[in-house]
Amino acid sequence: MNEIKIFSPATVANVSCGFDVLGFCLDTIGDEMIIRKTDKKGIYISKIEGHDLPFEVEKNVAGVSALALYEDAQPNFGFEIEIYKKIKPGSGVGSSSASAAGSVFAINELLGKPYNKTQLTYFAMKGEALASGSEHADNIAPALFGGFTLVKSVTPIEVLQIPTPSNLYVTVIHPQIEIKTSEARAILPKEVELKKAITQWANVGSLVHALHTNDYQLIKRSLEDVIVEPHRSKLIPFFNDVKLAANTYALGTGISGSGPSIFALSEGIENAKKVEQAIRNVYSKTDIAFETYVSKINVQGMKILS
Amino acid sequence: MNEIKIFSPATVANVSCGFDVLGFCLDTIGDEMIIRKTDKKGIYISKIEGHDLPFEVEKNVAGVSALALYEDAQPNFGFEIEIYKKIKPGSGVGSSSASAAGSVFAINELLGKPYNKTQLTYFAMKGEALASGSEHADNIAPALFGGFTLVKSVTPIEVLQIPTPSNLYVTVIHPQIEIKTSEARAILPKEVELKKAITQWANVGSLVHALHTNDYQLIKRSLEDVIVEPHRSKLIPFFNDVKLAANTYALGTGISGSGPSIFALSEGIENAKKVEQAIRNVYSKTDIAFETYVSKINVQGMKILS
Repeated sequence: MNEIKIFSPATVANVSCGFDVLGFCLDTIGDEMIIRKTDKKGIYISKIEGHDLPFEVEKNVAGVSALALYEDAQPNFGFEIEIYKKIKPGSGVGSSSASAAGSVFAINELLGKPYNKTQLTYFAMKGEALASGSEHADNIAPALFGGFTLVKSVTPIEVLQIPTPSNLYVTVIHPQIEIKTSEARAILPKEVELKKAITQWANVGSLVHALHTNDYQLIKRSLEDVIVEPHRSKLIPFFNDVKLAANTYALGTGISGSGPSIFALSEGIENAKKVEQAIRNVYSKTDIAFETYVSKINVQGMKILS
Repeated sequence: MNEIKIFSPATVANVSCGFDVLGFCLDTIGDEMIIRKTDKKGIYISKIEGHDLPFEVEKNVAGVSALALYEDAQPNFGFEIEIYKKIKPGSGVGSSSASAAGSVFAINELLGKPYNKTQLTYFAMKGEALASGSEHADNIAPALFGGFTLVKSVTPIEVLQIPTPSNLYVTVIHPQIEIKTSEARAILPKEVELKKAITQWANVGSLVHALHTNDYQLIKRSLEDVIVEPHRSKLIPFFNDVKLAANTYALGTGISGSGPSIFALSEGIENAKKVEQAIRNVYSKTDIAFETYVSKINVQGMKILS
């Protein structure tokens, strides 16, 4: 195999209660990448479509992660990367992680899979760090492993795959405004009330239990964030209106990653579509441009298209 | 049925990372109670053996919880309670919860089980409040439900039963010193670092996942408490020595409830016994009296003896 075309999925990190550790993978939203072997050694980005991103490998998220893997593997040939960027950078659904994880996944396939998913997470985090300033895996892990993931630790990397109930769908709205990850981080307090932290870890524990037991009503009762959402929701216009409208049909609604996208989880595609309409009704009354998506939870993660 | 004899088990609350929400049930350590119907209405405590506790119903933990149920049920007869107290009050393995939960469990049986376990938890919490000053369910829930429990919320009461791997054993050491629950609470900070809280809820999530997947090594990596143990361990003499010695064989070691008891979880009874010996070696060199126990995790909870 000298060339591979892949789908690198968008992802939702945090999932309300699971700030910095939980995430899940989307099915219908994601980038495409074509990667091919070249006689010339090194990593080259030959094409970027969709969004304006740097071609210099060291300044491109997909390039940096690819380079990290490449320098470890040291093959006697190189790779050329084409990026068809469909996830808008800064949208809050793991745009940089899709780039970072996509290139290492594809190169690993072309090399004959010498690395496992945990090792790929390590390389992808090097690219993610270029975008966010620090090494996080809460978007990379669901992109590479699929379904729901819990990043138990980053040093060393330990990713747990949590079962995904088969009838779980997500609705995402992406308001076309910019929230910098650094700004979303800065708004968070360094310290939190112990009492609230206890509520949060009770919710994390019960959400993991609910995913294991296919208990949609418990998922609903667990999708609560008493730590981060009260601060970050201020950065997202009409967040509370969207949440209120969505929760008529959804199990729960929260901020996707550091925003501005908002996600809502639903039991069944019909509910997810009703949520989409309810959210559209809210945002249509504003002057903010927006896009919405409905997706099944993608338990596969990365997909090989050809 | 006019009389019932029950075994009301000791329990371990918190379980390292799960402060205030997780707990599990012991098998061989617990109180016994005999409860019988009386023609005379009301709740009476006719016998207390083992430890010096008040006979006045309103001042006795088992009496207060029994009274809460009794006033709700309003039967046209009464109950007489005999308490064979084997769990030392203040030992940190749910002594007051065993009393509070035992009386309501037994009375419910004699009434023909009109209440479910969640309702019994509610009544038992009234008794527990007499002992600890606030309504907690992290010892009551495992005593009534058995196995591992997660108290998702107290208002309303929601208890989740987490699966228990079959080869999981616990070793407990009870140093014969007194730590008041109020003192153990006062030593805790009101606020905690967000970074540490994230580590804690990653551990809670991974522990719940590990219990679902019978992953003993993941249990081991999840039994870490970065929030409470650093403070409370100062109240327990030689805690660090015990932990170091126990962890040669144990999956993890932590403070049982608010102490002074220390628990260690092990895979297999042989390891649990080695842990017991290792702990005994540490404490034998001190001048502090102590007792140790080894127990399987009790997935049944309360037991009817006759």
